[in-house]
Amino acid sequence: MGGDNAPRMVIDGVEASLARFSDVRFLLFGDENRLKPLLDGRPKAKAASEVQHTSDVVTNEEKPGAALRGGRNSSMRLAIDAVGSGEADGVISAGNTGALMAMAKFVLKTLPGIDRPAIAAYYPTLRGESVMLDLGANVECDAENLVQFAVMGEVFARNVLGLDQPSIGILNVGAEGLKGNEAVKKAAATLQATPLPIKFYGFIEGDDIGAGTVDVVVTDGFTGNIALKTAEGTARLFGEFLKEALTASPISKLGAMLASRELRKFKRRVDPRRYNGAMFLGLNGICIKSHGGADAVGFANAIRVAVDLITNSFNENIKKDYAELSAAGPILKEAVAGA
Amino acid sequence: MGGDNAPRMVIDGVEASLARFSDVRFLLFGDENRLKPLLDGRPKAKAASEVQHTSDVVTNEEKPGAALRGGRNSSMRLAIDAVGSGEADGVISAGNTGALMAMAKFVLKTLPGIDRPAIAAYYPTLRGESVMLDLGANVECDAENLVQFAVMGEVFARNVLGLDQPSIGILNVGAEGLKGNEAVKKAAATLQATPLPIKFYGFIEGDDIGAGTVDVVVTDGFTGNIALKTAEGTARLFGEFLKEALTASPISKLGAMLASRELRKFKRRVDPRRYNGAMFLGLNGICIKSHGGADAVGFANAIRVAVDLITNSFNENIKKDYAELSAAGPILKEAVAGA
Repeated sequence: MGGDNAPRMVIDGVEASLARFSDVRFLLFGDENRLKPLLDGRPKAKAASEVQHTSDVVTNEEKPGAALRGGRNSSMRLAIDAVGSGEADGVISAGNTGALMAMAKFVLKTLPGIDRPAIAAYYPTLRGESVMLDLGANVECDAENLVQFAVMGEVFARNVLGLDQPSIGILNVGAEGLKGNEAVKKAAATLQATPLPIKFYGFIEGDDIGAGTVDVVVTDGFTGNIALKTAEGTARLFGEFLKEALTASPISKLGAMLASRELRKFKRRVDPRRYNGAMFLGLNGICIKSHGGADAVGFANAIRVAVDLITNSFNENIKKDYAELSAAGPILKEAVAGA
Repeated sequence: MGGDNAPRMVIDGVEASLARFSDVRFLLFGDENRLKPLLDGRPKAKAASEVQHTSDVVTNEEKPGAALRGGRNSSMRLAIDAVGSGEADGVISAGNTGALMAMAKFVLKTLPGIDRPAIAAYYPTLRGESVMLDLGANVECDAENLVQFAVMGEVFARNVLGLDQPSIGILNVGAEGLKGNEAVKKAAATLQATPLPIKFYGFIEGDDIGAGTVDVVVTDGFTGNIALKTAEGTARLFGEFLKEALTASPISKLGAMLASRELRKFKRRVDPRRYNGAMFLGLNGICIKSHGGADAVGFANAIRVAVDLITNSFNENIKKDYAELSAAGPILKEAVAGA
């Protein structure tokens, strides 16, 4: 029920993803009076879905704590409960991020060695794709949180992006060691000295995100959220300026027409909907957050992210890696304390 | 002497800006053995410049405190001293940002009511141009710093961007009042309640930067620096992908050729060199920081920014406005304390 265009875009997203993943089954939590008429118009989605009715929803304005206490019968909570009970393999929501994180943490619990889960997403770079975390779950982070994000991101890049030895960078205001706040300096010192087999690149700057300088960008949730949305906004600005240029004169219109095939590919390549679906990492279960403003194409992509994680046994792999991390946990904690 | 391509790009930038501002005179501080041969090849720049020799430089690696203590005869320091003594109307440097800020603060002093100067720059948006601060002078900021940035940004937007009633937004991870860290929440509460005639919009998110939702974006130096560089990196990524698309096939090449006039305009519109030249606001003198990687076109733009500020009597106007701010200072301090 969450998101600007819900529940229509959810049903349309389900319909779209069934074209790609025909064997996926959906549990839809929400108001059956609104869901069922929509499903009647989408026969494939209807055949693959089961509606579990609740009229209770978490609003966007609700504080996470209030949602956790008062939202026990909300569509969001029941969907997470289904993952907790094993009825579902993963949950996808376009609703209130803070509430989703609070509920998922409460119901699914964090993995051993992880204090705070993080939100991660991948995005296009000059070198391919990279992953960035945290994107908003933790507004204030200390060095230990950042070190945990680095380890989670590394495990993710290895298991999901399929990279042998992903490189990790910490986002900072300069590449030199003396720059930045205490948290990033201490986290970098810890990762430089860690006995874990992590390829730590060092500090990177904002322009390294798009350059793809590292495979995993580690940052606090405040900075990460703003960086991600700044990139989205810049892409939109750039796209708008380009559209103006290519429609400004009859001859540029003709040029755009000739280049239309390649321009469409280009548009697809930078389409933010293709990168919709942020992962909550560090939880004992798969939980995907779709952008609230997603349309059906974007929501279908968030479903794809969940399906990818599930079919690649991501959580099993990550648990194994985390078990090693957990054993190394005290070492890291000491290292952070000593840095 | 500062910057990746210095001092050549400085001399070339001087030469380029003389085509636009023929009556500007330059004092060039640095190694005359390197500057003079370059000037010999640039007759206009040579005629408009006076070299003040020093072989001492501030390196990029130097800490601000060390540069302040040990760099009394550095080219950077002597250039700032020339503004302090009234010999020059403004200083432009592509060198070490931290050292430049520390020296400028020491020599020029801050304006009444301002605890910490901020770095500001303008950038293109869907609605025109906006200004953002701080871009890296203050890695950690409290609510009072943010409120002062808001006031400085407002004065700037009125005097330099020529806006009647510029709107101010604070960069945050969500538009709702309950989101963000303590500093942004307290700063917003203060600006909501301020008796100063400031048009405070509220919180904005990263994608509002490119959208031009507000005229002045206020943020701490850590986030602002990363947001700005993320935008630059995204623009570069987008440009690279576009170039690939427009050279991918003979027909798209032909299309690009037909649209070349408009594409060149587009390129100019998003050229980061056009936005080179960050202003140190809150100082008793004009100090402009060029990007270290700037070329002659970029450096010439940094010169343009300085000339703009000087010819528009920016510092006199801003002082008048700051005097009012200074009178309102205790009110703001109380408001921050009470928020």
